[in-house]
Amino acid sequence: MAQTKEKAATTKIKAQELAKEQKQVSVSEFFLKNRHLLGFDNPLKALSTTVKELVDNSLDACEEMPVLPEILVELRQTAENKFIIIVEDNGPGITKEQLPNVFARLLYGSKFHSMKQGRGQQGIGVSASILYGQLTTGKPARITSRIDVKHPANFIELRINTAKNEPDVLTEKEIEWLNKEHGIRVEIELEGKYQKGKLSVDEYMKQSAISNPHAQFTYINPLKERVTYKRATNQMPKPAKKIQPHPHGIELGALMQMMKATKAKTMLQFLTNEFSRVSSNVAHEILTKAQIGQETKPVDMAHDQSEKLFKSIQETKIMAPPTDCLSPIGEEILTASLKKEFPAEFFASTTRSPSVYRGIPFQVEAAIAYGGSLPKEELVRLVRFANKVPLQYQQSACATTRSVINTVWRNYGLDQSKGAIPSGPAVIVVHIVSVWVPFTSESKEAIAHYPEIIKEIKLAVQEVGRKLYSFVRKTVRMREQKERASLFDGYIPELASTLAVLTGAKKTELEEKLKERLKKDLPLILEQQA
Amino acid sequence: MAQTKEKAATTKIKAQELAKEQKQVSVSEFFLKNRHLLGFDNPLKALSTTVKELVDNSLDACEEMPVLPEILVELRQTAENKFIIIVEDNGPGITKEQLPNVFARLLYGSKFHSMKQGRGQQGIGVSASILYGQLTTGKPARITSRIDVKHPANFIELRINTAKNEPDVLTEKEIEWLNKEHGIRVEIELEGKYQKGKLSVDEYMKQSAISNPHAQFTYINPLKERVTYKRATNQMPKPAKKIQPHPHGIELGALMQMMKATKAKTMLQFLTNEFSRVSSNVAHEILTKAQIGQETKPVDMAHDQSEKLFKSIQETKIMAPPTDCLSPIGEEILTASLKKEFPAEFFASTTRSPSVYRGIPFQVEAAIAYGGSLPKEELVRLVRFANKVPLQYQQSACATTRSVINTVWRNYGLDQSKGAIPSGPAVIVVHIVSVWVPFTSESKEAIAHYPEIIKEIKLAVQEVGRKLYSFVRKTVRMREQKERASLFDGYIPELASTLAVLTGAKKTELEEKLKERLKKDLPLILEQQA
Repeated sequence: MAQTKEKAATTKIKAQELAKEQKQVSVSEFFLKNRHLLGFDNPLKALSTTVKELVDNSLDACEEMPVLPEILVELRQTAENKFIIIVEDNGPGITKEQLPNVFARLLYGSKFHSMKQGRGQQGIGVSASILYGQLTTGKPARITSRIDVKHPANFIELRINTAKNEPDVLTEKEIEWLNKEHGIRVEIELEGKYQKGKLSVDEYMKQSAISNPHAQFTYINPLKERVTYKRATNQMPKPAKKIQPHPHGIELGALMQMMKATKAKTMLQFLTNEFSRVSSNVAHEILTKAQIGQETKPVDMAHDQSEKLFKSIQETKIMAPPTDCLSPIGEEILTASLKKEFPAEFFASTTRSPSVYRGIPFQVEAAIAYGGSLPKEELVRLVRFANKVPLQYQQSACATTRSVINTVWRNYGLDQSKGAIPSGPAVIVVHIVSVWVPFTSESKEAIAHYPEIIKEIKLAVQEVGRKLYSFVRKTVRMREQKERASLFDGYIPELASTLAVLTGAKKTELEEKLKERLKKDLPLILEQQA
Repeated sequence: MAQTKEKAATTKIKAQELAKEQKQVSVSEFFLKNRHLLGFDNPLKALSTTVKELVDNSLDACEEMPVLPEILVELRQTAENKFIIIVEDNGPGITKEQLPNVFARLLYGSKFHSMKQGRGQQGIGVSASILYGQLTTGKPARITSRIDVKHPANFIELRINTAKNEPDVLTEKEIEWLNKEHGIRVEIELEGKYQKGKLSVDEYMKQSAISNPHAQFTYINPLKERVTYKRATNQMPKPAKKIQPHPHGIELGALMQMMKATKAKTMLQFLTNEFSRVSSNVAHEILTKAQIGQETKPVDMAHDQSEKLFKSIQETKIMAPPTDCLSPIGEEILTASLKKEFPAEFFASTTRSPSVYRGIPFQVEAAIAYGGSLPKEELVRLVRFANKVPLQYQQSACATTRSVINTVWRNYGLDQSKGAIPSGPAVIVVHIVSVWVPFTSESKEAIAHYPEIIKEIKLAVQEVGRKLYSFVRKTVRMREQKERASLFDGYIPELASTLAVLTGAKKTELEEKLKERLKKDLPLILEQQA
């Protein structure tokens, strides 16, 4: 009994002791400790990630306006492992009031709540880059913004207060910004590592130019090499459109929460206003089936009524979500970009029809480049894009990779080991666009394994695979024909001798005739098989 | 000019228009939309993830106390795709005041700020499970907690207010909890899918029993099958210890922030109190090299002084971080667990010495099971643990996988295609423990690709690889010897005839003698080679 009492005392102390340590973690602190989630695992990647986040924002802003993007990206080395990253655009700028929030709060932005295809979606990336800069160099970020010609530009220096996830503005002033009517310029100093190659910022810029043919990029690397990527078209891409959520993508709990939050006064209004593809007729059908009056107030819905409504929605045929909200690159431009980029002899692209995962529309494009002077003995190179942004890291975690590995490439003329990417002289490109791309982490480097997405990617690569196969088959046949012809060519002297003996004709003449014949026929045979 | 004015007007409106849409996103909303980051991509995984998060917390709580864990896990099917998950433990319980915070706030907990090996670390998992439950079923979570025998238990029903990331308590009362002096019981109803196999909850429980031999689990699956995993040892594992950060793992910005926040009054105090492995001597050396007085107040440190301090820290030899803070499974128990689990003929384990990434100590264990009735034609099965928690998902994204793929397994007697996991009759186990395991996402399914970690895993699997090879070589030699012997056996009649002719002895006698000789010698030969 004494023992039990003593034990009890210890127990109580333990729970109370633990209680003192239980506290809220700020989202800034969380990502500071988990910085690899945001793409800051190492100095090399830190540089790429920061450029990517800033360029993504600039491109999105220019499309919002809309204006043809003119973007400057400059990397200046300040010490062995330190760089200033400068990105400047000609977008709409950001108001003075919002500048500190947009740049120095994690999870702050305009894109999170809207269902619209965009490069940024979370309101994390740029603030995270500033956070990483202050972590590794102790220096604040420097931002210039101008919203029109009538106003001077605003310049601020800021840090993030990580314990509160709030901006800490050090300097704020108006400055002159010559030759710039509107736009943003961001300068971040951070610890980084610059090198050339597949994972470099150079490569990122090149791939961005491929997926954004309407943008002009000027890129100056730390070696002061300056590259200008001129725009390939003066046409803005088809604008991406905001959409409402689709009823078949909503879960019971989310539906209940929407009914609590809605401004609609009746259930009929609620269904027709807050969802896509719900006409009055469809709303009527849903409510009747669920035995709910059209005039019922959303806030008055009881739990069992909500469950009935949810079931009724699932059982009602509703048109698939609108897909004109998406803006892919397009087969033609994708092929043209590949031709510009890779020294291959065969190219093919495909843009699939849009599809839906969890009620969210998405669309997949794939392309392939084959042969030429692409390396023959290596694994195929996989180039991935999501909402027109190149994905350079975490290839093995990506739904794209899974889909490519699970495709039987031997059927399409490439070698492939079990459980591996195919090998051979080819580049495979996969692009997914969506109003909400499900990434495997906040750093947006790989696409999550939703079965619908994996299926669409497989279908897309199979399509280009089939095109590849018909090319490979043709090439292989041609090669075989040529080999046969050259074999025949070798036998001509002997054949000519025999014929000379049989017919009494001259051997040399016969030889010549046979050779001429072969020369004349071979192209015809090859053509017929083509 | 008129045009410029008009354009300017449009621009201004755009920036102001966008400003209205820019706002803070709550961390709950963020994870609700990005639920796959937390392991809720699909109903099958939702079930595993929830069980994992609850069991992790229970095991951690029992070790905090410390008490030998007795954990009940029950899955009850309530509809075709709905389940109630119940997890009950005998840990210290949670105080009435903290219950709502711990269970209904994301990023709330006791483990985030302490550097200590534990299963949970972020304060996200359990709240996320409750969030997913309310999203898919609209039902609140039900929690019972008791902190000692003198108090009744507290029972609450709660939801998460996602817009605010705050608890919303629906019911709160005291209840009797018979036969339970202290502990927690959590019930969450959610949409899920139950099935058997490699990714099942059944498998998760089995693997948890392997990595936690001191725990007793009672597991009741939806088919009402009851399995009890009895504890293999009554010894609590070596307790994991909290440590201070190591100076070589701190970045400049973080150092500056620590100096702002510290309670230490002098730089000498600051360095010796807030870091591990910094004695007065070491602190003295650091400060002298940086030309900073010992009595300088940390808050008074200017930017350039901080930079000098940082540089001086990097240049000072400091003992590696303490590693007795880690608690691995151990070679013996790992081998024993594998023997229990897999029908192989050869087993080997290794526990590496602790190592350090970014100033954070970690330690890798590896094991292999080979031969027996393991499937011969398939890819090798990779079993992964982190801080004693089985990792079932995202294998391809894991540093473990990268390390195994980059090891040349042909050297150790396994087949391997380029860029793939080896194939053959083997199971490879990798376990990493650390005071902070860097996962690739909040769902804690795969380990991030830090070079130091990849290197240690490679060294660990190479060690067991070499052990495997000496076994395989021996086995292969034995097989070759046997084959040679049986070949000789086949020639005995002919040899006997020839000898009979040469010597005049009887053929049958010679044959018998030769056979006896072979029988006697073969085991000796085999033994010598063993």
